[in-house]
This record gives sequence, C-alpha cells and structure tokens, in this order.
Amino acid sequence: MSAPLLDSLRERTPLVHCVTNLVATTFSANALLAVGASPAMVEDAEEAAELAAVAGALVVNTGTMSRFRAEGMHAAASAARDAGTPWLLDPVGVGPLSLRTHVASELLGLGPTVVRGNASEILALAGREGGGRGVDATVGVEDAADAADELARTHGTVVAVSGVVDRLTDGTRVHRVGGGHPLMGRVTAMGCALGAVTAAFLAAARATGDDPLTAAAAAHAVVGASGAAAGAAARGPGSFVPAWLDELALVDGAAAAALVDPA
Amino acid sequence: MSAPLLDSLRERTPLVHCVTNLVATTFSANALLAVGASPAMVEDAEEAAELAAVAGALVVNTGTMSRFRAEGMHAAASAARDAGTPWLLDPVGVGPLSLRTHVASELLGLGPTVVRGNASEILALAGREGGGRGVDATVGVEDAADAADELARTHGTVVAVSGVVDRLTDGTRVHRVGGGHPLMGRVTAMGCALGAVTAAFLAAARATGDDPLTAAAAAHAVVGASGAAAGAAARGPGSFVPAWLDELALVDGAAAAALVDPA
Amino acid sequence: MSAPLLDSLRERTPLVHCVTNLVATTFSANALLAVGASPAMVEDAEEAAELAAVAGALVVNTGTMSRFRAEGMHAAASAARDAGTPWLLDPVGVGPLSLRTHVASELLGLGPTVVRGNASEILALAGREGGGRGVDATVGVEDAADAADELARTHGTVVAVSGVVDRLTDGTRVHRVGGGHPLMGRVTAMGCALGAVTAAFLAAARATGDDPLTAAAAAHAVVGASGAAAGAAARGPGSFVPAWLDELALVDGAAAAALVDPA
Repeated sequence: MSAPLLDSLRERTPLVHCVTNLVATTFSANALLAVGASPAMVEDAEEAAELAAVAGALVVNTGTMSRFRAEGMHAAASAARDAGTPWLLDPVGVGPLSLRTHVASELLGLGPTVVRGNASEILALAGREGGGRGVDATVGVEDAADAADELARTHGTVVAVSGVVDRLTDGTRVHRVGGGHPLMGRVTAMGCALGAVTAAFLAAARATGDDPLTAAAAAHAVVGASGAAAGAAARGPGSFVPAWLDELALVDGAAAAALVDPA
Repeated sequence: MSAPLLDSLRERTPLVHCVTNLVATTFSANALLAVGASPAMVEDAEEAAELAAVAGALVVNTGTMSRFRAEGMHAAASAARDAGTPWLLDPVGVGPLSLRTHVASELLGLGPTVVRGNASEILALAGREGGGRGVDATVGVEDAADAADELARTHGTVVAVSGVVDRLTDGTRVHRVGGGHPLMGRVTAMGCALGAVTAAFLAAARATGDDPLTAAAAAHAVVGASGAAAGAAARGPGSFVPAWLDELALVDGAAAAALVDPA
Repeated sequence: MSAPLLDSLRERTPLVHCVTNLVATTFSANALLAVGASPAMVEDAEEAAELAAVAGALVVNTGTMSRFRAEGMHAAASAARDAGTPWLLDPVGVGPLSLRTHVASELLGLGPTVVRGNASEILALAGREGGGRGVDATVGVEDAADAADELARTHGTVVAVSGVVDRLTDGTRVHRVGGGHPLMGRVTAMGCALGAVTAAFLAAARATGDDPLTAAAAAHAVVGASGAAAGAAARGPGSFVPAWLDELALVDGAAAAALVDPA
C-alpha cells in the first residue's frame, strides 16, 4: 500500500512532532521535509504537550537522554495518547544505559503505536539479555523475533526491528522489508531518521485508513528503496547523506512497495 | 549597497554570537562561516552575557525553547543592548507555542535591531491572529504587512518577513527582496540561517555606516541569490545544502543587490 | 605508525564516547563512523559514567558549555580515569568565556591522556595571555609551543596544538603534522571532529601498544591527508563536508603517515 500512502503523505504534508536526540534533530527534520512532511522539533514539556495534541504524529526518541528531555517526552506522549495522535517510541541505547532504560520502560506504558529499534534495543525493552554496545546492536534482527512478538502482543503495538532485513510485527502478522545499503550503517542517526519517517507514514495513514503495521512497513520500504539508490550513487558515507535526502524526495512509492514481504 | 557590505563583511569576519535552537546550530554556524563571518554558539547565561558584549552582532532564536536557553537569551540580549551591539530576534514558532511566545514578547521589549520571521510569526508577535502550524507559516508575506509596519514603528526596529518575496520595513520605508528557490522550503532551519546571515550584515554595517534596513535587505539578497543558484544546481533538498553553502561563499554582492526592490 | 593504527581502528571499530558540544555532535559522530569507529554521544551524568567505563576512549569538549553538561563531563572523565580509559580534553573557547574556563581547569586535574586545542585555547589553559576571540585562535601554533610543553610536562599529558601545521608534544618529543586545506577553517566543528578522531586512535593504540603521542600524531595525519584530498575536490565549504567524510573512509594510513614530521 505504500504508493497511495506516500502520495497521501506528500499531498497532506502532515505535521510530525519530534522529541528526539541532539545527534538526530537536524537530520530527522531534513528527512521529514524530504519525504514530504512538516517537522516540528519541540521538547519543553509545556510546549511539547501543546504540539503533540495537534500534530499528525509524534516521535519520542531516547538518545542523548536528559531529565529535562524526559519530562518533555512524558508530556508529549501523554498528550498524544489523550488526543488519539499516533506516536512512535524509538528506544535508542536502551539496555546498557540506565536513565533511558528507565524512561523508555515508562513510555512503553503510555501505549506507543509503533516501537522501532535495533535488535539489542528491542531485546532490552522486552527485559531480555541482548547485548548492545553503546547505541549499536550486537545481535541480528531475527534473534529479537520472539521478544518483538511478545512486546507487540503485551502492549498492543507494532514492533519494527531494523537491520539488514527489517522485521515488523503487530504480534500476529509479520512483514519483512529489504532494500537499504551498507553505507546506512556508516551515517549517524539513520535509525532515528527511519523512526521519524515512520511517524510521518502513521500520520498519513489516518487519512487513508491503513493500519499501523502497513504504514510502518511502507515507511521502511521507502527508506530502504531510497537508501539503496543513494548507496549506489555515493562515493562514501559523506556523499551518502545528501544523496539519500534527494532520493527520499524523489522515490516512487509503488516501486518501494515491492520491498515489503508480507510473510 | 550589498556589494560593499558583503566585501566589508568578508574582510572583517565579524564575530556573530548565536543563541539559537538545536536544529539550526550547526547549519547556522556553517552559513556564517561560508558568508565570511565567525560564528560563536554560546547559550549559558553567564557566558552569553560575556560574549554578546564583545561580539559584532547577536542572534536570538526561539526555536527548541527551554527555560535554560531562555535565561541565556535574556542575558545575551541585555548585554547586547547595554553594549550597543546590534541584535536580531528570530521568533521561531511564536504563536501556537506558549513558552516561546512569552519569551519572545519579553525579548521584544529589549529592543532588537531587527526582527525576522515568517508571516505567521510576525502576526503572532504583533498580537494578531495569524494561524501558524508548528513552525510553518500558513499565511503570505503581504498578509503580515500591517502587523510588520506597526511592530517596526512601535519598537523602533526593522521587521523582515520572509516568504517567496521577502518584505522588510523600518516602519517608514519598505524593501522587497526576490530570488530564492522552492527547495529552500524543503531544508530545515533555512530561515534561522537567514537570520544568522542577517546578523553578520548588521555587524558589517557598523563599519560601513549603513542603516539596519539596508543591511538586512543586503543579507536577504545574498541569501536569495545564493539560494537561486544552488536550487538550479541541486537534484533535491539533500544536495541543495552543500550547494547553497558553496554559493554563499562565492556569491557576488553586486549581483545580489539587484534583487532588492526599494519600493 | 599510522598505517597499522588506522588498520587496527577499522578492524576493531572502537566505541568512542563523546560528551561534546551542540554544534559538533552530529559531525563528530559522522567523522567517527567514517574513520571506522563507533560513536556514542551520551551526556547525562549517570549514563556518561556508565559508558566511559566501558568505552574504548572518551572525548570531553567544552563548547556550548552548560552546568548540566559540565556534570556529565566530570562524571565521564572520572569514570574514564578510574577505568584506565584514555580520554581527550578539547577546551573549546577556553579563555574569553568564564564557565568553560573554570570547568576545563578542573577537568585538566583529572588527567586527560591528550589535550587538543588551538593556540589561544592552549595558552589560556596554561594560564597565559593568548587572545582568542570567541572560539577562534588569534595567535599561531608556534606561539603556544612553550605553554604546550609546560602543560604536557606538568600534567603528564600529550598536548596537540592545531593550526596550519599542527604541533604535538608529550613534553619531551615534538611531532609536527602537515596536510589539511584552508577550507577546513570554513567548516564549523572541524577541530572538534579532529578531537573525536584522535580519541578513536587512542582507543586503537590500546591494542597496538602505541603511545599516545604516536596515536595522536597518526590521527592528525589522517585528518590532514583526508582534508587535503577533500579540499582539492570541493567547490566550497558546503561540498567540502561530504567530500571530507568520504575521504576519511577511504584514506590510506601509510600515505597519511608521511605527513608526520617527528622533529
């Protein structure tokens, strides 16, 4: 369904509210603008609550965690829940780092529409051993399959585990998404940008009536297709970044949809 | 007058102090370096006061507002006022978001040399209804003409409203500036970078004796000319960013000056 | 020795913990990924202590100082010292700005493995008059030679002074490193990225058994060589950034090593 969803996104330019980390903020905003959404990066608790209530979707990302940002995250996620705004939790670095592990666990209780992370983060969020070193995964996507299914069923959410082949589940159905390029692992905040783009698709899906699993898979496919195209054109990780943003603005939704395998 | 002003700027590399938002900080610093200024991004209240007193100009930008950054803004703007340093207020997101609307109103009372924003932000700062959605304008530049004129006269400041054709006024005279490219709306913090470049021209104008309206119009023309050139060369929003910074370093001030219409 | 060190770095992808400034965070992370390391940008005091103890190396950078970030810096540097993790102090803007000058002086007491700065910052850190304007040096590298030697001997550290030709010393030996390109001075946070890359080489040196002066000189040579190549290819400061990150991923360590002059 990613062709109509991407078309709908580009037509409506949904407002996507991000409470995200310091490394990802500019890149996520540029990814959202490139794909056709309108980003607003707002983290003060009072302002975050105001914005989350009117935004098309919200991203909460636990990277570069601080107690100040944690307040904004709670306020935004609570306001989104109360307003029925779809929101995505991106548990960056959860597992080896205490504060964000605690905050992410509380945020999970506020009912995110989608949880997106690497395999180590998803294992940690599910309370299992999963390694993780800083913000990098040390295990593969399929190693987190059971934990992802359980998280999805327990919390009534979609869980997207990112890796060479992404695996997304709502606890019943599973979609796998290919595409991408090794250079995506050499650019910081690539996963964070994927989370932001996924939120934009959640906003677009409110208009098309698509469910969150379909929307999240469409977003992963658009990122995978644009990443593959950019990787083929780039000379290295530096030239990959502008090339990827260009591709994100140019990508064809129907072509990207072919990357989704509804297993 | 933008040819001599740009030449003066490049010769003197004025120190431009920015208390700006998290999305804009790297991009604004790179825009300042590209145009020929020396950026210093300093937001701690004690340090901000020290720096604003010795800088050539100051930018205060209300994006990603926090109470911590608000303290730095007050300290910097007060120090600039006391030292006679020209300063620019960029009221990002003012209107729909409470904390920054309150802070921007207080900062306006400290006498900015220039206020630069989109039409919705200028309407909100003038206390009028103007829509605004997150950080995007929902009305056109000319819809904010009356509010801009009134703000300029009441506060003795130059008001620059950015849009397809920018409109700048000191309450008496009006300059319009063309140029630019649609891709500028697909890159985050483009308006913030314009505000920073405008501050660099205010610093340069202290040496040439140009008035703030002339300096601000020259800055908008340089950004418009470099934006048009970059837009023509770019494949999309990703490649626009490095292209624009290159053009900003190469742009000819006299050619840019032709974009200013002193109506 | 920079060929084996760079090879070792790329093979081991050491985890480099950065407590750095808001302007540098994304660019430093991308520089670390490009050169072959794994960045983790963590600044909350509790998390910073956890991470510094397990990281391969740590960078503490005093730009955009705040009391919040100062707490994270102390926690990280203390944890690194206790765990025997090599760490680098980058005293950005020390001298004209009070808070960071105070914090950097305290951090110096925690025994950094390497101190890297421009000539004005090193003079200020040594308690001497050295000008400095905002974050820019106003004196040349060799003007800070005595101060650097004294700092190195007093604190048992390596001091790297960056400029047209970098000068690194452990208080006894001196290495000078050439290369680079004038466009490096037109890109923000270039020195911060150099500091981050130097920390990655300190981590790699734990495996190869190279001493900190050798590791720091190898890092400066790799940055100099990649900067020279990128500068030759770039049209201006905008296109320099992706070109430099590409070169950092492609640079040959043996060729870079030729830039080191162990005087």
